[in-house]
Amino acid sequence: MARYKVILAYDGTAFSGMQRQANSRNVQSVVESALRSLGWQGKSIMAAGRTDAGVHASGQVIAFDLDWRHSPDTLLKALNAELPQAVAAQSASLAGDDFHPRYDAKARTYEYRIICQPSRDPLRERYAWRVWPAPKLGRLKAAAKLLRGEHDFAPFGLPPKKGGSTIRKVLRAEWRQETEDEFVFTVKATAFLYHMARRLVGLQVKVGQGLLEPDAIQTALEKKREKVRELAPAHGLTLVDVEY
Amino acid sequence: MARYKVILAYDGTAFSGMQRQANSRNVQSVVESALRSLGWQGKSIMAAGRTDAGVHASGQVIAFDLDWRHSPDTLLKALNAELPQAVAAQSASLAGDDFHPRYDAKARTYEYRIICQPSRDPLRERYAWRVWPAPKLGRLKAAAKLLRGEHDFAPFGLPPKKGGSTIRKVLRAEWRQETEDEFVFTVKATAFLYHMARRLVGLQVKVGQGLLEPDAIQTALEKKREKVRELAPAHGLTLVDVEY
Repeated sequence: MARYKVILAYDGTAFSGMQRQANSRNVQSVVESALRSLGWQGKSIMAAGRTDAGVHASGQVIAFDLDWRHSPDTLLKALNAELPQAVAAQSASLAGDDFHPRYDAKARTYEYRIICQPSRDPLRERYAWRVWPAPKLGRLKAAAKLLRGEHDFAPFGLPPKKGGSTIRKVLRAEWRQETEDEFVFTVKATAFLYHMARRLVGLQVKVGQGLLEPDAIQTALEKKREKVRELAPAHGLTLVDVEY
Repeated sequence: MARYKVILAYDGTAFSGMQRQANSRNVQSVVESALRSLGWQGKSIMAAGRTDAGVHASGQVIAFDLDWRHSPDTLLKALNAELPQAVAAQSASLAGDDFHPRYDAKARTYEYRIICQPSRDPLRERYAWRVWPAPKLGRLKAAAKLLRGEHDFAPFGLPPKKGGSTIRKVLRAEWRQETEDEFVFTVKATAFLYHMARRLVGLQVKVGQGLLEPDAIQTALEKKREKVRELAPAHGLTLVDVEY
């Protein structure tokens, strides 16, 4: 029996999220069911992050204990053969016996993609939020700058445990232009509050569109009790990396 | 009553193709049903190209006669409000009374996207074919060059009418590198045989991987009776443009 670390990618569209829930199609159950067909008899796998319903991942990290007589690379292939099309392991490796993907994580990185066009576009909206009118890239970049560093992000979401700290350290927050009408926001933090990444995007987009003044960011970071109501939709968000 | 020309985009994943068929979810039925809720009473819309099951479009062209009292732009919005998420009109305009999107088309352009990586990747495989080992871009480019011009493409597919001509003129055939591991093939021709675009890709990829010699292309273009068996999957293909 040994502990394995697996990097997982999934299209979150048809899932209620990462975490197991009764009567829902969730990523955890799908992975556990694939592992069971490889002889896994555990109760529950461990995962770095709960992603919401509809949120995607290219770098989710899970761990589990398994009695496996072959190489990690063979495990990768066997697991992918059992997983449905919407979920795939990207790598598998041996981990220390006490490795925990959530408690040992030093930072998480998310990407949020927006496309700026007036009409619906079925080929581009599965992994991006369509926003119109187009936000100004300069305003987005200026807004992102204000988010960096340690702040009380209470208005941006709830902590995992009721009454827990809402202070988080944003290590990276930046917008880049991917194509003429496509912008990507990368945000890296030690940890995130519930819905925090999506509210960061929702607020910045409003500022970028000129519907809110740039100081709306500072106001939100200072007025600790006010809630940010701008919640960007789940399908533009992807968990891309977890750092240890 | 006037004739309208609409450019249509769709995610072909869940469709049996463009054309109406009994007991299937097809794009034509979905569009006709949306049009009916706008008062359309026609029997059948006209479309530039039959796309196969699973093939996408960003530039399919349809036409229909409609009694519409508002602007084409209002028609665009009304139509998109009725269409399901996987289908969207990109533009709507008035066309001449005798405009026919198929018979009047001078050329069609398709794009085929491949990604080169060893493991499944759920976030990148909806609109691209995953190919491994990676084909060499230089070999793909050399293969594409051979396809240009007028040839008898009989080994690449059947004509729309049994016994019809299999001679087609390829106006453009080229590969470009989009990202480190992503290649896109653009092919423009006066018209295409059934499955032709996918067989062109299937054969070139084999040549690119070194599993076939470059002269396999010429052999296929000369040995008119031999059938090209390499058929690239539908989900990498997108109809991007129809020229009039």
